[in-house]
Amino acid sequence: MIRMSQSFIRTLREDPADAEVASHKLLVRAGYIRRSAAGVYTWLPLGLKVLRKVEAIVREEQDAIGGNEILFSALQPRAPYEATGRWEEYGPNLFRLQDRRQDDYLLAPTHEEMFTLVVKDLFNSYKDLPVMLYQVQTKYRDEARPRGGLLRVREFVMKDAYSFDVADAGLDASYEKQRAAYQRTFDRLGLPTVICKADAGAMGGSRSEEFLHPTPIGEDTFVLSEGGFAANVEAVTTLAPAPLSEAEIAQLPAMHLEETPGASTIAALTDFSNQAFPGKGPVAESGEWTRYEMLKHLVYMLTYPDGTAEPLVIAIPGDREVDEKRLEVAVAPATAVPFTEEDFAKHPVLTKGFIGPEGLGLESFSKIRYLVDPRVVPGTSWVAGAGKKDMHVYDLVFGRDFTADGTIEAAEVRDGDPAPDGSGPLRLTRGMEMGHIFQLGRKYAEALELKVLDENGKAVTPTMGSYGIGVTRAVAAIAERFCDDKGLVWPRQVAPVDVHVVAASKDPAVFAEAERISAELEARGLEVLYDDRPKASPGVKFKDSELLGIPTAVVIGRSFADGVLELRDRASGEVTETTPEAIVEQVLAAVRS
Amino acid sequence: MIRMSQSFIRTLREDPADAEVASHKLLVRAGYIRRSAAGVYTWLPLGLKVLRKVEAIVREEQDAIGGNEILFSALQPRAPYEATGRWEEYGPNLFRLQDRRQDDYLLAPTHEEMFTLVVKDLFNSYKDLPVMLYQVQTKYRDEARPRGGLLRVREFVMKDAYSFDVADAGLDASYEKQRAAYQRTFDRLGLPTVICKADAGAMGGSRSEEFLHPTPIGEDTFVLSEGGFAANVEAVTTLAPAPLSEAEIAQLPAMHLEETPGASTIAALTDFSNQAFPGKGPVAESGEWTRYEMLKHLVYMLTYPDGTAEPLVIAIPGDREVDEKRLEVAVAPATAVPFTEEDFAKHPVLTKGFIGPEGLGLESFSKIRYLVDPRVVPGTSWVAGAGKKDMHVYDLVFGRDFTADGTIEAAEVRDGDPAPDGSGPLRLTRGMEMGHIFQLGRKYAEALELKVLDENGKAVTPTMGSYGIGVTRAVAAIAERFCDDKGLVWPRQVAPVDVHVVAASKDPAVFAEAERISAELEARGLEVLYDDRPKASPGVKFKDSELLGIPTAVVIGRSFADGVLELRDRASGEVTETTPEAIVEQVLAAVRS
Repeated sequence: MIRMSQSFIRTLREDPADAEVASHKLLVRAGYIRRSAAGVYTWLPLGLKVLRKVEAIVREEQDAIGGNEILFSALQPRAPYEATGRWEEYGPNLFRLQDRRQDDYLLAPTHEEMFTLVVKDLFNSYKDLPVMLYQVQTKYRDEARPRGGLLRVREFVMKDAYSFDVADAGLDASYEKQRAAYQRTFDRLGLPTVICKADAGAMGGSRSEEFLHPTPIGEDTFVLSEGGFAANVEAVTTLAPAPLSEAEIAQLPAMHLEETPGASTIAALTDFSNQAFPGKGPVAESGEWTRYEMLKHLVYMLTYPDGTAEPLVIAIPGDREVDEKRLEVAVAPATAVPFTEEDFAKHPVLTKGFIGPEGLGLESFSKIRYLVDPRVVPGTSWVAGAGKKDMHVYDLVFGRDFTADGTIEAAEVRDGDPAPDGSGPLRLTRGMEMGHIFQLGRKYAEALELKVLDENGKAVTPTMGSYGIGVTRAVAAIAERFCDDKGLVWPRQVAPVDVHVVAASKDPAVFAEAERISAELEARGLEVLYDDRPKASPGVKFKDSELLGIPTAVVIGRSFADGVLELRDRASGEVTETTPEAIVEQVLAAVRS
Repeated sequence: MIRMSQSFIRTLREDPADAEVASHKLLVRAGYIRRSAAGVYTWLPLGLKVLRKVEAIVREEQDAIGGNEILFSALQPRAPYEATGRWEEYGPNLFRLQDRRQDDYLLAPTHEEMFTLVVKDLFNSYKDLPVMLYQVQTKYRDEARPRGGLLRVREFVMKDAYSFDVADAGLDASYEKQRAAYQRTFDRLGLPTVICKADAGAMGGSRSEEFLHPTPIGEDTFVLSEGGFAANVEAVTTLAPAPLSEAEIAQLPAMHLEETPGASTIAALTDFSNQAFPGKGPVAESGEWTRYEMLKHLVYMLTYPDGTAEPLVIAIPGDREVDEKRLEVAVAPATAVPFTEEDFAKHPVLTKGFIGPEGLGLESFSKIRYLVDPRVVPGTSWVAGAGKKDMHVYDLVFGRDFTADGTIEAAEVRDGDPAPDGSGPLRLTRGMEMGHIFQLGRKYAEALELKVLDENGKAVTPTMGSYGIGVTRAVAAIAERFCDDKGLVWPRQVAPVDVHVVAASKDPAVFAEAERISAELEARGLEVLYDDRPKASPGVKFKDSELLGIPTAVVIGRSFADGVLELRDRASGEVTETTPEAIVEQVLAAVRS
């Protein structure tokens, strides 16, 4: 039994100044967490209980699929991370430090390397595999912008699991096991999730899916179609129109150069086109020009992990913007930064505002890599910069008048875009990433030389899967989903305690009865929070009870003199009058319902 | 049920190359832990289970005395540690790092500051106190010489608790509660401990006791008397002889200066005295001279935390050495380094080998601070350097011929020295520090400005207690205490599982029976490790079973064909033959005994 008079539970009347989202405000106000530095929180007694319950659910589902729990230190040496290239790749997100001998260490943001090494250390035969290992452990990432209380922090608890299989089919089986375990885990946590195709890109594997919990405060954008397609925006592929045949292309009007004074933006070019060439545009009947066909050319400087840099020109339909995150994934492991004035000065072949494809015979070849949106297929007709100031080319046909070095998925995805699998229009939704499962393949095993002997005594490299759940973030997501204007409304399975007993009177008989009920409930196996504060008013106690959000409350108040108690359900707000004789069984029934 | 065929449990036949102590060898060989860097270990599945059981016992005893569990991040900002001076004081033992904004952080070696701040943050009235807070948390210390597997590591789990009281009497009560909780905790863990008076010195508090577990591999030396006195060597006070009265002193022979050519060491001076003045020494009847009365003078350079330095001369009986640890405590917070040749060159008044007390009229005053051993009381007679090369003074009486600026507890403590409380001769013993409780007092509260309002609305500074248990080290101590030449022998309360079921045959019927028994034991609430490895020989399985050290094992082997099973007790080695019908109840009885 937790007696509030002796506990370290303090509620606050004011929202924390830096709080924007409900979970942050309420977890701090209800005394579940407390900030100790930017993105670093202290778990207070009730918060810690919620965290442990969430961890227990995660752990049970990992154990149920044969997971072996182990525990790594957060402090790890540089060498393994150097071997996989991640010491550098993590950039400023990694907390790095040196020990007294000036040896380099890091605070691990994730432990792929260490899991790979411990398997290498102890296993050597195909007979040892498959194996599933996991840990529930404190991780560190030096986030540039910690925010939202527990939503994005620099220290957090994560469950990370890794599967090791000899064959690809084994990896598929391990992956499916985890996928099912994740579904059960989030179900039990009360968090609906959508399984989204995620970009596997930089991780080097094949299958990759994120468990996104739809919520307006989510930092991820994902798309859903009515037919069931779901993907992270970064993983959406564009449904390209069918290309025209050579015969069809031959019938299209020839390209022509036009003077377009001052039309250095898509908007200006569209307006100009409608004024200078009214009725000649592609819109059926009206002949209007739209932004779509004004092929937008953008120039970026790419920088690769080894430090080399290279410019890149991309072309997308003029009615769309580049989605920075999609671009980031498309060019990974390089990073892309828009060309600066200085960059343009160094590349005079690129005439800002009038860049177009090369090979039109109008300018010298730049040899700069050139990628186009997947909608730019043979036979599509565009207006584009002619590479000279105040000049554009019209009726420019891809496959006839220009080509590219490839396509790029960098244009934004929009509500209503068609799903790539033909399952209908996409709906854009905000979500919070709760889990991520992906097939790492042999990247880490190769980098760290993990091998086992197969049936024939030949050394083979196992294939790995990686499976993560953000435990700290799950606490935030649950708090965010289960709350109202009065406070938190914990689902039973993660509530810090089962029942809140409130002595709401100054009458000693009320305290005696509250004590009796609390003790009896505890003897029956429930966790009890007992508000035994002698001087707090009933009003203060009720407000705190709502703020703390324990699912069931027993109120012993003024009407106890008439033999009446109250059973309160936090979620429904329902208040049931009952008797001292019946209360214990009723609470048990409610908790076990 | 943990099936060994599918688990990440691997035993090793060889001791790790760097292992010296039994717990280190066995925990690694039995696959409980694995080294990942110097002083940094990974917890493998069975090891993690032991760790969690030890944590649970520690936690239960903290909860039982009203402890509120919270959890701090290991990563903490510099400022609070700067405020208490510990950012500097910790020196190279502290892992320091910077975040992406170049702000300073540390990996907390202990959290006094953070506990003080969280109470300051949420409490403001005497009515809120007393409160007891604790955490079971991962701590970091950059040990110069990690050793002994888990005995001295750089990352470890510690339970640290803090009490906050308004009045000193409250602190005494909180301290007694923790003291009793610690006794229960170590009893439950199966670790006998001696409660030793410890030096409170640098921590600024009053009472301070260590829970030392006597073991030859311990790093601490402590003393015990038959009458029950127990103290860390650093905390032993010297039992001084009774001083003589002025009248008695007046009857002592006068001091006299003697030439002592070349007698610049205690040994040489003693020999010289016996040769030059035979029969004039203090030993009854023989008149022999002993090293005791050759007052040894040593010079140190003290350096204070603020960087200032000062020389110090200390005098101890010539038959003892200085104990560096006792000296360290005696001069704290300063550090003491023996005078170098260079230091002597700068202080020509100190004639190396012939230093003695000042004021003998033989040399100019140095004004250097001068402290003597507590055995140097008024009326005691000594031989000491005369401050000039090859000259000593005999019959030099303290209180008559010389005085000092005070006493110092720097001389070594020896087997047979009298206990300071008169409880008999002291016995020197090796021990491992398992816990430490001490009264911090108001040092941290003052440094971090923690105040609460008292009954009269006046701001007062609470007084704190600090209580730590090394959880990781407890695992090592238990493994060290409970093992034999075949492996680990876990006490039931911390064993990774309750029972080890061994299928010791290739007969499918044996596996079926082992499976049935394992399932039934699990259904009855026991944790079961089932050795279901299809190809391992009975011999290998028995060896592993002994190495793993589960208290009770069930062996289903060849004699199963005759309806006979074996129940094995790891601690006693006892083997009981039994039947398939009786085995489950017998195991339950054994586990619950």
